[in-house]
Amino acid sequence: MKVSELGEFGLIERIREELGAQDKAKKILGRRSKLLIGIGDDAALWQSSAAAQLATTDTLVAGVHFPREGASWVDLGWKALAANVSDIAAMGGTPEYALVTLALPDDFEVEDVVALYKGMIAVAREYGVVIAGGDTVRSSDVTITVALTGRAAEDQRGEPLALRRNAGRAGDLIAVSGSLGNAAGGLRVAQEGRSCSPEAAAFLRRAQVRPHPRVDLGQALLRTGIRCAIDISDGLAQDLRHICEASGLGATVRIADIPLSEHLSHTLPEDAVAMAASGGEDYELLFTGPVGAVDRVRGRFAIPIAVIGSLVEDGERRVRFLDEEGREVSFASAGWDHFAGGPAR
Amino acid sequence: MKVSELGEFGLIERIREELGAQDKAKKILGRRSKLLIGIGDDAALWQSSAAAQLATTDTLVAGVHFPREGASWVDLGWKALAANVSDIAAMGGTPEYALVTLALPDDFEVEDVVALYKGMIAVAREYGVVIAGGDTVRSSDVTITVALTGRAAEDQRGEPLALRRNAGRAGDLIAVSGSLGNAAGGLRVAQEGRSCSPEAAAFLRRAQVRPHPRVDLGQALLRTGIRCAIDISDGLAQDLRHICEASGLGATVRIADIPLSEHLSHTLPEDAVAMAASGGEDYELLFTGPVGAVDRVRGRFAIPIAVIGSLVEDGERRVRFLDEEGREVSFASAGWDHFAGGPAR
Repeated sequence: MKVSELGEFGLIERIREELGAQDKAKKILGRRSKLLIGIGDDAALWQSSAAAQLATTDTLVAGVHFPREGASWVDLGWKALAANVSDIAAMGGTPEYALVTLALPDDFEVEDVVALYKGMIAVAREYGVVIAGGDTVRSSDVTITVALTGRAAEDQRGEPLALRRNAGRAGDLIAVSGSLGNAAGGLRVAQEGRSCSPEAAAFLRRAQVRPHPRVDLGQALLRTGIRCAIDISDGLAQDLRHICEASGLGATVRIADIPLSEHLSHTLPEDAVAMAASGGEDYELLFTGPVGAVDRVRGRFAIPIAVIGSLVEDGERRVRFLDEEGREVSFASAGWDHFAGGPAR
Repeated sequence: MKVSELGEFGLIERIREELGAQDKAKKILGRRSKLLIGIGDDAALWQSSAAAQLATTDTLVAGVHFPREGASWVDLGWKALAANVSDIAAMGGTPEYALVTLALPDDFEVEDVVALYKGMIAVAREYGVVIAGGDTVRSSDVTITVALTGRAAEDQRGEPLALRRNAGRAGDLIAVSGSLGNAAGGLRVAQEGRSCSPEAAAFLRRAQVRPHPRVDLGQALLRTGIRCAIDISDGLAQDLRHICEASGLGATVRIADIPLSEHLSHTLPEDAVAMAASGGEDYELLFTGPVGAVDRVRGRFAIPIAVIGSLVEDGERRVRFLDEEGREVSFASAGWDHFAGGPAR
C-alpha cells in the first residue's frame, strides 16, 4: 500500500502501532526520565531529572546520503538514529528522546516506512532512546530527519559537564576508538562487488550499515578527565580539523598509528589508509587529552584506543598527516562538505 | 553567492554571524533557562529549571507548503518557526530552544538563507526562542525543518501540566480565539490579485505571512482550568476532528458563531465561512471546557474568544457544522492531509 492510500493520519496510527509501548527503551532510560505524552498531541512531554539537556539533529536525503533506488530502509532507519546518538555520545551524554520527521513521496510504500521504523527501533532499544513524536510530510525526495535530546553528564557538584570541540590544549595526545575506514570499505565492497572473504565482507558491511555509537566511552572519557572530543562522522581529517579550528591549534597525525582493521587492510590494501583518514560514518570517538588522562581511558576501557598524534601550536590550524619518514602526505579527498565537496568517498 | 561556493562550514559561520548573541530572546527566556553550548559543537546544551520539557517538530517543503518559484524566504522563516511555537502554545507551554535543519539545492542563494534566518530570528525575538543548533544538507528541493523545545506549565505542587487533545468532556463548550479563515483569505487575495481595500489586503496578507501563535493565551487557559486545546494549523474542521477522535466524542458547531474578521467577510463574502471552517494556518487556539472556565478566560483575557458549539456524546465522533435552521452543512474540503488530500485551499 502507498502512503497516499493510507493518508497522513492513517500513517501516524500505523507508526504508533509499530512503536508499541517502547518498554525496553523506557527501562534503560530508568527512573531519571519519564515520557508523559508521546505521539498524538501537539507536542511531546517528558520529565527529566537532569541538570542540563543536550539536543542535536541530523538528516539523510535521498540522492545525497543514500541512493534513490535500492535503498535498504531498515539500514537507513538504523543510521538515521545512530548518527544522532553518536552526536550525544560525542558530548559525553546519554540519549533520551527522539522526534522523527519523514518527508516522503506520495507513492512511497507503507511497508518501507515500517522498515525505516524497525531500523530506528532497533537502535532505540539498544541505547534506551524513546521515540516521542515527529512529523510526516509529502515531498518529491525521501528525507529522514531525527532530532534527539539527551541528558548531560554532571560533575560532583551537579554542574553540567560535556565533551567539547574547543577544549583541546597544545601538547594533548590525539586518540581514537576502534578502527577507522571500515564504513567506507563496506560501501566500496558493496558497490564494486570486490571479492573478499565472507567474514571480511560481513564485517565491513556491518560497519557501514550498523554503526554502533560509543555512548559508554563518551561518558567514560568525562570521568577520566578528558574534555575534548568529536565523533567521526565526516572522516578523521575533517573532524580533526573541526577540533583544531575550535581549539585554535594544529595537529600532527602519524599515519602508521591510525588504527586499521585486519579486514580492511586485507580487502583494500591500497586504499585502507586513505579510507581511514578521510572516509566518514565510522562513528568512532576522536578525542584529545594529556597523556595521564588518555592512559587512564586505555586502562579502564575494554575497547581499543589508539594514540595517533598530538595537538600543536599552529596559527594556521593545519592538520598534518605524516608518514614514517616524517613527510607530510595529503589525501585526495578529505571529509564531507555538503555543498562544496560532496561525499568524500 | 550560491551555498555551494560558500560550502557547508562557511554557511554555518554565516548563520552564526546572523544569529549574533540572541540577547533579546535570552532576556525573555530569563533566569529559568540558560544556553550553555550553541551552534558549533556536536550537540547543543542548555540548563532549564523546568519540571518537564515539551518538544515538537514541523516541516515546510517546497512544492507542497510553498511554491518552488517566487517564495518569500523571510516570510517562510517566520512561518517555519511560528508553526512550532504554536504547537508549544497549544500545550500551554513556553517555547525555549530551536534546532533548524535546512535542506537546500547547491545553487540556493546565501542571501536567501540569510532571509530565512531573518524571518526566524524575528519570531525568536518576539517569543523568547533561542536558536541553539541544527543541520544543513544538500537536497534537490528546499525543506525547512524546525524542532522546538519548551518548558511545560506546572501546577501548584510543581507537577507538569499541559493542554491535551484528549481532555474534552461531553457538554464542554467549544471556543476559539481571534477570527478564522484570514490566512486562507490572504493566500487567495495574493494568488488572485482580487480587488479590495488596501487595509483589508494588508490585514489578510499579514494573517497569512505573519501568524502570531497564542502562547500567552495557552498559558492562561491552563490557569483558568481549561485542559483541552489544539492549535488551528490544518483548519477548524480537521483540528476539531483531532480533539473529537482523541476525546472519543462528537462536536456540533453553529456556523453563524464562527468568528470572521470584517476584512475577510467584506473581501470574500461568498467564501469567508468555508475558509473559516476549513482553511489552515490561522494558528489560533481551539479549546473546550465547562461554561465556567470558558467564561473566566473571556473575562480575564483581552483577545476575543468566541464560543462556537459544544462537545457531545457520539460513538461515531462526528464533527457537525449546523446552519441557523439547524441543518448540517458540509464543506467541500475540510483540512489538510499530507498524503491523501493535499492542501485544503
